[in-house]
Amino acid sequence: MSSESLRYRAGVWIESKPVQNFIIALIVINAVTLGLQTSSSWMAQSGGLLLQLDNLILAVFVAEIGIKLFAFRLGFFKTGWNNFDFIVVGIALVPASGPLAVVRALRILRVLRMISMVPRLRFVVEALLHAIPGISSIGLLMLIIFYVFAVMATTLFGGDFPEWFGSIGASMYTLFQVMTLESWSMGIVRPVMELFPYAWLYFIPFILIATFTMLNLFIGIIVDTMQTMHQADHDEEREHIEQVVHEDTGELANEMRQLRAELAGMRASLGK
Amino acid sequence: MSSESLRYRAGVWIESKPVQNFIIALIVINAVTLGLQTSSSWMAQSGGLLLQLDNLILAVFVAEIGIKLFAFRLGFFKTGWNNFDFIVVGIALVPASGPLAVVRALRILRVLRMISMVPRLRFVVEALLHAIPGISSIGLLMLIIFYVFAVMATTLFGGDFPEWFGSIGASMYTLFQVMTLESWSMGIVRPVMELFPYAWLYFIPFILIATFTMLNLFIGIIVDTMQTMHQADHDEEREHIEQVVHEDTGELANEMRQLRAELAGMRASLGK
Amino acid sequence: MSSESLRYRAGVWIESKPVQNFIIALIVINAVTLGLQTSSSWMAQSGGLLLQLDNLILAVFVAEIGIKLFAFRLGFFKTGWNNFDFIVVGIALVPASGPLAVVRALRILRVLRMISMVPRLRFVVEALLHAIPGISSIGLLMLIIFYVFAVMATTLFGGDFPEWFGSIGASMYTLFQVMTLESWSMGIVRPVMELFPYAWLYFIPFILIATFTMLNLFIGIIVDTMQTMHQADHDEEREHIEQVVHEDTGELANEMRQLRAELAGMRASLGK
Amino acid sequence: MSSESLRYRAGVWIESKPVQNFIIALIVINAVTLGLQTSSSWMAQSGGLLLQLDNLILAVFVAEIGIKLFAFRLGFFKTGWNNFDFIVVGIALVPASGPLAVVRALRILRVLRMISMVPRLRFVVEALLHAIPGISSIGLLMLIIFYVFAVMATTLFGGDFPEWFGSIGASMYTLFQVMTLESWSMGIVRPVMELFPYAWLYFIPFILIATFTMLNLFIGIIVDTMQTMHQADHDEEREHIEQVVHEDTGELANEMRQLRAELAGMRASLGK
Repeated sequence: MSSESLRYRAGVWIESKPVQNFIIALIVINAVTLGLQTSSSWMAQSGGLLLQLDNLILAVFVAEIGIKLFAFRLGFFKTGWNNFDFIVVGIALVPASGPLAVVRALRILRVLRMISMVPRLRFVVEALLHAIPGISSIGLLMLIIFYVFAVMATTLFGGDFPEWFGSIGASMYTLFQVMTLESWSMGIVRPVMELFPYAWLYFIPFILIATFTMLNLFIGIIVDTMQTMHQADHDEEREHIEQVVHEDTGELANEMRQLRAELAGMRASLGK
Repeated sequence: MSSESLRYRAGVWIESKPVQNFIIALIVINAVTLGLQTSSSWMAQSGGLLLQLDNLILAVFVAEIGIKLFAFRLGFFKTGWNNFDFIVVGIALVPASGPLAVVRALRILRVLRMISMVPRLRFVVEALLHAIPGISSIGLLMLIIFYVFAVMATTLFGGDFPEWFGSIGASMYTLFQVMTLESWSMGIVRPVMELFPYAWLYFIPFILIATFTMLNLFIGIIVDTMQTMHQADHDEEREHIEQVVHEDTGELANEMRQLRAELAGMRASLGK
Repeated sequence: MSSESLRYRAGVWIESKPVQNFIIALIVINAVTLGLQTSSSWMAQSGGLLLQLDNLILAVFVAEIGIKLFAFRLGFFKTGWNNFDFIVVGIALVPASGPLAVVRALRILRVLRMISMVPRLRFVVEALLHAIPGISSIGLLMLIIFYVFAVMATTLFGGDFPEWFGSIGASMYTLFQVMTLESWSMGIVRPVMELFPYAWLYFIPFILIATFTMLNLFIGIIVDTMQTMHQADHDEEREHIEQVVHEDTGELANEMRQLRAELAGMRASLGK
Repeated sequence: MSSESLRYRAGVWIESKPVQNFIIALIVINAVTLGLQTSSSWMAQSGGLLLQLDNLILAVFVAEIGIKLFAFRLGFFKTGWNNFDFIVVGIALVPASGPLAVVRALRILRVLRMISMVPRLRFVVEALLHAIPGISSIGLLMLIIFYVFAVMATTLFGGDFPEWFGSIGASMYTLFQVMTLESWSMGIVRPVMELFPYAWLYFIPFILIATFTMLNLFIGIIVDTMQTMHQADHDEEREHIEQVVHEDTGELANEMRQLRAELAGMRASLGK
């Protein structure tokens, strides 16, 4: 058998329904085992089994991606979802030296493969990602606003409230908190106003600008989604009306052609 | 009288307007008596009367459902609202042994029968439930995101903050709280950041992903509702335009037929 | 001069532009004086003047409404805005005995007359009120849900948390707070869960049901507003298309009539 | 060279692509240097360099605006963005005497020039500002509601809670906090209710009115944006349908003209 045909058959097999379903079942089992590993009582009782199962499932995932790489070669990396799978499985192979807890924690990301395997979920996520380009301008604007306000807050309040506004990073975090309206007044602004009575001249405009911009981002997504939906609607409707007009005038034209034929016949009979 | 005709007449009677209104009146009275039972001063004064009234009304409800079961037999369980009534009334018949307070508390669910009895409320609830299938995919996605983030939080922060992230359940509850933005920063993330300075790398993305997904769920319902509404609008409009075009071209066709008739007449007179 | 014509002229005069503007100016001045009365330093300095001005303006308002009552008699009470003016001015005439502070506080409601006097504001408020009937069903549903959950909470948690759930009223207030998501977890549910570990089975469904219902109320208003707007749009468009079709087929019909005329002429010339 | 032509060439040069890009690059560099100046470690290490760079960039900005003023004279002030640039750069020239920190803090506003220089951002901000006139009526209404409620709160609660309701300004700030639902119950209303048990009769209506009005403001923007978008859609569609109808009936009319021509030919041959 030629290598090319072997590649082709491997690609068909790995993407066949039963193999896909087997992988999905493994992801679900893995989600459970990874969940159980967070429980110290389960780990004490059957920790070895859980870790072995984990390694087994990981081996299958690695094999799956290996076969796909063999079948599609570099074409594998052309779809975003394959890259996603590759990274998510790859994380588990990073040796757990250094900050152990973080690497161990990231293994659960494997469960997100569920999204790339189930078409319905993939569709939802793609729809969510689809909304992002349309809001990138507002996102950039938001970033500039945050940076400007963060620098201002660090200059104004950084000295007296180092925990909240000690650096640009701290200020941006605090401003994010203020934007979500969490404890903005009782927790942040009222204490600040005790030292700077006019601090509200900084915070109220920030809240108004930030929430108004977020609101418009939100409205932007709604209007965008609607426009796409309407376009399809309108195209269909327009086509239908066009068709109705064509049909009706077609009938008229037909009738007229018959009239002309009769007239021609009459003319001929006259000329006889 | 045959059993069949008795069943039929019982069904008609139990669903007649006066009986329905009587049941609604009983539900309102029951809502009041169940409410008064929460007041210890009322219970001290006329607790016996309240409980007796309660039992009386319950007996009527049981009789009502019994008659319906007699009239419609197993067909009774075919509509969701009947099942709802059956369960809600049935709860009150569970002997109040064991966790007494919970069973007693659930008796108030009987008042929800109001929804199944008043068409306007039933319509609203059915509209609300109608929105659910359209968002089930996003709901499933949300569940996966929650599970993945909860396992991660339990692994990372579970040891140091057992009250918030001690188990997957505790983590999911805390993440739900964070998603609703309640005390997320001052109450949860700032304390966590004192031990894990980079914890915001976990929480800020979670907040952005969770709120963005909820937002899209929301937008999904709006767009869905609008699409349904527009479809009806467009169908009506299309029909109208179609009709206008048909009428107008019909008139033209008529005129043309007359022309052909005249022409035929002319031909005949010529052939004469 | 007859009483009837006097009434008519008084009505025209009181609703004339200059008088209206004079009243609006008085409302603005009154807003300022009522505001200044809250400042103890202003009251100490020129409290007498402020109170006198207040009484003067009130006298003008009373006179204005008196003239309107004279002019329109009971017809005055037919428009909602007139009733609003009548009540708001009338409050100031209630003797400030008894709970003094409340009556004094309500005098500021007079400033709301601005809304009934400025057409643009009146239009906005009428639009807001217009949205209410469409959401009354959901409002009623919300009330039932609140009542059922409040009775349940009072039964379950009333004994241990009398401040939050001691009576149905207290429970409804707390549930309203929970629905607005204010301190629901850190302030209410976490403390409750220390005694009742399964309390989240009560609160999480409540939050989901309450916010989902509020969301649909919101969506209902959006869709309703859009539908009204679209109806106008579509009616206009439909009319336009109708007109285009009529015009074009009208031209054709015209052409055809000429054809028939020519044919008739030909027939006549043949018959000659 | 005439002064006029010099002006013209200066205007073309200053608005040419390379100069614009150079200014944008300077703004980005300035954003970084202004950010670094908030860090005391950077200021200790290379504070002199940062300040010199800052002055240099400021000099270029001043020169740029000077050239524009020379080129366009008073026409410069006709566009809002130019005024914005003028003020934002001008702030840095205000001598930093008096409240030093505030003036220094405002220098970062220069970074906002990014918005006026990058067309995509300018477009987004213009779209945001475009939404404001449509909501000015609701904004005015909101202001009246806030003022009325603030005066009322100051009268009722000002004596006992001077920090929250001591003056109209303090009350408006607190009401703004309540409107954003931040700590409204646990932080403000529950403490107030301990002294005034019926305070909820003031706060709950305020929350309902304020959030309902904000909601309608929000809906207003959505509907407005949609209407603009639909108008364009409908105009295009209408034009298309019109065209289809014209084309089809045009063909019919053509056919009819041929018919008449043939008829005329026939008549002529008959008359022969």
